[in-house]
Amino acid sequence: MKRSKLRFGVVGIGRIGKIHIENLVNRIPGAEVVAVCDVATAELEAIAARFGIGKTFGDYRELLDLPEVDAVVICSPTNLHYQMIVDAAARGKQIFCEKPIDLSIEKVQAANQEVRRRGVRMMVGFNRRFDPNFLKVRETIAGGLVGQPHVLRITSRDPGPPPEQYIRASGGIFLDMTIHDFDMARYLMGSEVTEVYTRAAVLVDPMIGKAGDFDTAVITLTFENGAFAVIDNSRKAVYGYDQRVEMFGSEGMVTVTNNTPDTHILCDRVGIHTALPLNFFLERYAESYQREMRAFVDAVVNQTPVPVGGEDGLKAMVIALAAGKSARENRPVKLSEIYEGVPTCQVS
Amino acid sequence: MKRSKLRFGVVGIGRIGKIHIENLVNRIPGAEVVAVCDVATAELEAIAARFGIGKTFGDYRELLDLPEVDAVVICSPTNLHYQMIVDAAARGKQIFCEKPIDLSIEKVQAANQEVRRRGVRMMVGFNRRFDPNFLKVRETIAGGLVGQPHVLRITSRDPGPPPEQYIRASGGIFLDMTIHDFDMARYLMGSEVTEVYTRAAVLVDPMIGKAGDFDTAVITLTFENGAFAVIDNSRKAVYGYDQRVEMFGSEGMVTVTNNTPDTHILCDRVGIHTALPLNFFLERYAESYQREMRAFVDAVVNQTPVPVGGEDGLKAMVIALAAGKSARENRPVKLSEIYEGVPTCQVS
Amino acid sequence: MKRSKLRFGVVGIGRIGKIHIENLVNRIPGAEVVAVCDVATAELEAIAARFGIGKTFGDYRELLDLPEVDAVVICSPTNLHYQMIVDAAARGKQIFCEKPIDLSIEKVQAANQEVRRRGVRMMVGFNRRFDPNFLKVRETIAGGLVGQPHVLRITSRDPGPPPEQYIRASGGIFLDMTIHDFDMARYLMGSEVTEVYTRAAVLVDPMIGKAGDFDTAVITLTFENGAFAVIDNSRKAVYGYDQRVEMFGSEGMVTVTNNTPDTHILCDRVGIHTALPLNFFLERYAESYQREMRAFVDAVVNQTPVPVGGEDGLKAMVIALAAGKSARENRPVKLSEIYEGVPTCQVS
Amino acid sequence: MKRSKLRFGVVGIGRIGKIHIENLVNRIPGAEVVAVCDVATAELEAIAARFGIGKTFGDYRELLDLPEVDAVVICSPTNLHYQMIVDAAARGKQIFCEKPIDLSIEKVQAANQEVRRRGVRMMVGFNRRFDPNFLKVRETIAGGLVGQPHVLRITSRDPGPPPEQYIRASGGIFLDMTIHDFDMARYLMGSEVTEVYTRAAVLVDPMIGKAGDFDTAVITLTFENGAFAVIDNSRKAVYGYDQRVEMFGSEGMVTVTNNTPDTHILCDRVGIHTALPLNFFLERYAESYQREMRAFVDAVVNQTPVPVGGEDGLKAMVIALAAGKSARENRPVKLSEIYEGVPTCQVS
Repeated sequence: MKRSKLRFGVVGIGRIGKIHIENLVNRIPGAEVVAVCDVATAELEAIAARFGIGKTFGDYRELLDLPEVDAVVICSPTNLHYQMIVDAAARGKQIFCEKPIDLSIEKVQAANQEVRRRGVRMMVGFNRRFDPNFLKVRETIAGGLVGQPHVLRITSRDPGPPPEQYIRASGGIFLDMTIHDFDMARYLMGSEVTEVYTRAAVLVDPMIGKAGDFDTAVITLTFENGAFAVIDNSRKAVYGYDQRVEMFGSEGMVTVTNNTPDTHILCDRVGIHTALPLNFFLERYAESYQREMRAFVDAVVNQTPVPVGGEDGLKAMVIALAAGKSARENRPVKLSEIYEGVPTCQVS
Repeated sequence: MKRSKLRFGVVGIGRIGKIHIENLVNRIPGAEVVAVCDVATAELEAIAARFGIGKTFGDYRELLDLPEVDAVVICSPTNLHYQMIVDAAARGKQIFCEKPIDLSIEKVQAANQEVRRRGVRMMVGFNRRFDPNFLKVRETIAGGLVGQPHVLRITSRDPGPPPEQYIRASGGIFLDMTIHDFDMARYLMGSEVTEVYTRAAVLVDPMIGKAGDFDTAVITLTFENGAFAVIDNSRKAVYGYDQRVEMFGSEGMVTVTNNTPDTHILCDRVGIHTALPLNFFLERYAESYQREMRAFVDAVVNQTPVPVGGEDGLKAMVIALAAGKSARENRPVKLSEIYEGVPTCQVS
Repeated sequence: MKRSKLRFGVVGIGRIGKIHIENLVNRIPGAEVVAVCDVATAELEAIAARFGIGKTFGDYRELLDLPEVDAVVICSPTNLHYQMIVDAAARGKQIFCEKPIDLSIEKVQAANQEVRRRGVRMMVGFNRRFDPNFLKVRETIAGGLVGQPHVLRITSRDPGPPPEQYIRASGGIFLDMTIHDFDMARYLMGSEVTEVYTRAAVLVDPMIGKAGDFDTAVITLTFENGAFAVIDNSRKAVYGYDQRVEMFGSEGMVTVTNNTPDTHILCDRVGIHTALPLNFFLERYAESYQREMRAFVDAVVNQTPVPVGGEDGLKAMVIALAAGKSARENRPVKLSEIYEGVPTCQVS
Repeated sequence: MKRSKLRFGVVGIGRIGKIHIENLVNRIPGAEVVAVCDVATAELEAIAARFGIGKTFGDYRELLDLPEVDAVVICSPTNLHYQMIVDAAARGKQIFCEKPIDLSIEKVQAANQEVRRRGVRMMVGFNRRFDPNFLKVRETIAGGLVGQPHVLRITSRDPGPPPEQYIRASGGIFLDMTIHDFDMARYLMGSEVTEVYTRAAVLVDPMIGKAGDFDTAVITLTFENGAFAVIDNSRKAVYGYDQRVEMFGSEGMVTVTNNTPDTHILCDRVGIHTALPLNFFLERYAESYQREMRAFVDAVVNQTPVPVGGEDGLKAMVIALAAGKSARENRPVKLSEIYEGVPTCQVS
């Protein structure tokens, strides 16, 4: 009998892990989840029961040793990614890894190299590329409807800052939050970043400053094609999760606004009122998580390249490191100061 | 061991039947589908295999005879609804029935009576009540934010007319298409309709006129609370499925616009362009179908009243019959001309 | 020396009279105001001084007797229009008359006949035809962009009801307020109305009912071309002056929304907020008043037909009378019941 | 008899000069134009005749010598501003001067000093402060509705580049075009700029590069209050004049979009289409030019400070010079590198 479904093991059952499990179980006909791993035993059992997953592990290596696991989804803390990738690749498993791959360039390079050497596929979780809004922007640009790109604007603001503990382990705003925008900028521009200038501050919460991080940033990117991007970030937008992009080019402009839970418009004595944006990434990007996992399954099943690979993870990280250096030194930083190899690579 | 899931049998695997099956299987944790029935054997087997449903039948009575079936979803052609309801009620099954219950008032009354007599629940598939946009309008009105209702406007236009065969079996535009708007009008107004005036024409396709039906209509409803509603319908809006409502009242106005696949705005030399509405009901009302079925499961499990009952089905149908009479005779028609009992009933 | 400017006399210096004076003096290079007339002597002198107008009168006949007056703008109370038109036409003056021409069909006919007999031009003040929004809708329809018209929707709501005295002298909501919408419907549809059905009520203020009038109405118009229009009116929209139209046709739909004083969007913790519409007709239709008077001056100077003539005034009035009759008798009323001649006339 | 009107002389009858004349003559009751000056004699006479202006001059000093001239509007080429200001101030005339005052800091300082020494008022033509959209943004910020400012975004794109001759005389994009945005940034932020970083390029037209200028720029401003602004400029937006701002703060966000000639929305088979923005500054900022001149008249008549003074002109220019230096040197430039005195001045 022909095996029709790709069998997954999922490592890590935090917010993102649960999203991937639910999508794989309920919304992706070509996939099934056969094993899950986490150190939180009680919750792990509950998840396994709820989604009908047969096997649970506290040690990811046992999960990787299962011959019936075709592919692994790595949603563990960032500092564990590297070893898991290496171990999964060694066992010939296909890999979906949440971003960032690691906080060190060397380890990301090593992970990418190992993946290549073992001949497996690794996709990195830049889910926003699969959001219907941003996909439409990409298609519009790729279709030439805005002509030659000139200026890209990305606004990315969270509804509220994470707790101090998260901030301290995050690698900083650029590696944790802006990294999505850096990937989006490369994706939409279709060209590589050569230089970064960052102005950053602590305007939201002094705790963030004490933790050595910023909560507000304005970043200018310069691209090989001569165009620019401006990204503005905040850890706290009281009106909700603000996720917009705008590409301006020689033949026009395309932009996307936020998604809302409904389209209502209320007119009363004081004004006209509409709904706030969907509040955070689990809601806002629900569809993108589904589409991204479907794309991974398709790539593995059809043996085609994954749409977001390890090189993409590396490049976004190099930009993030340059952004941090620029913010600290208040000067434009060339990516070649961070990593020699990057500017010559191609966008996947 | 406590049984945790409501076990469903689904009768009819057309477009709507498939929607309900997929939602029950994948998106409603408290439900499972144990049997399906249709005369299209090959497709039935494919569906059963795809969704892991154990039993298939060509005769719905065999499905109803299964003791493990707690509830039945009736998605068969309208002319079969009545007998299926009677048979299901006789076996104590909980019933979810697509609209309209029947094209004859007497049979709808009889079905409702049988349901009451047997002590089962029957919910009617007016799914639009569960759409996030219309729910928000309802909440806004119920919360008093627009004050006393004065004028309700409903625009409901299909992207294109159904085939002639469908038209001929449909009972006419008012029973087939506008019936959703009549239910919506009652739902949003929170008051009963007393009189209908309809102006209708064949402007889209002469075939529809030859089939004895209209394709364009403008309908004025008068309510017990003194307010009015205006509904406009068309079988063909070239720009897609157009589904909007607006309630105007003493303290304000609330309206909802169409949903789109994305929020992109393209500005070029000739104008500013945005996406067309989601194209038809399966996409546009995807969420409402999920929420409606969840509401049915909840009502059955918690033994609470279903949010849309047989009386709602009856009332919408009486309005539809009055609308047809008004269109043919070009005069306002009181609902009491159609059915004595209606105006004294309460909105559920 | 060639006389370059059309010399105006303005009769009546109420709100509309002042608008026309200001536009003629300041914004229409081809016009000047040489005389004004009103019984309110003190205000008349102030107006004359402010706008540098040489002559003032309490009796309009003296103004009409001035040989230097080429054209007269009639902004007096409706009951005085007829005699002023007759007297102005007798003296060969070009006439701009505010709507309605009169409340009696016979007098409107007689006025129109006198204007024709004397060979002067008379334009009626349906200013909304000159509003940039509605002009764009008309152009879009005339350009075939929505195909064959099917359903026109007009929403016209005032920010608040006028005082009782005004209501009692107004001729009722249909002749006073909806008459603009009736003209708009003819203008946008490019076809004549054959039948009217009105549902009307007193929902805003019982005073209006005591004065024998309605404050809320929903009106269905049937046109010679087979299409329909739906108009909804209210004397009180708490959120301001609500003036929208939407034409739906075989190839698309065009709509216009309200104008606002600015385009700001405020996002805060509770929602997204924008500005209310411009609040009433003097602000909302400021540009249309200028354009309409410029069109009158152009027609007189170039000896071309006026864009809105006495027949347009008559036809809108007939629809208004039919609407009132329909509301009182709760049945569709054919225009031929009101006035035999109308349905055979052409839209100017 | 009491003199009620402020008597103006206007120097320069180019595009802006004509705007000011028309507003002073037709729309500002408290003003009249008694003299105009330009070297283009024929056009000057035509303008004087059209607006009923009694005196015309080829030499501005003759205009300044008229005792009946209370105030002068300087719309001549930038290189003539300085001497005209000095001469007007020496004669005690009130001064309205178009931006920029001059291209040299020293001369701007000298002009400002002379104005102060002579005790006259001088207002600089940053008309956008008086635009209803930006005024509303300012009020919203000043009213605390967005809390503490964090990030300001300004998009300012022209519909097309000016001719080469204009470019060469303009002082460069930052002094010619972005200077409006620098003033807007100060105005909206209510704080002074301390540092500028600019990334600029020639992406629109190589001619502009040959003329030593840029046509595309992205500028980051840092303010004394710790907030940032990002400005993006282009000399060519094919969809028209794009003028938007957005202020993001601790309690919310306020933004304004472009103005359009009408509010129409057309839905057809391919999409939903709306009007392009008003195309260039004469249309887009028509109201702001009126309001700004009214504000000048009011300030002079009431002897209150002008809302935009010579210090504002100076400060915007210093930012523009810093922006140019930053673009050329690709590094953040502190304003104190350009001009010592600035950071300690207060926003007027």
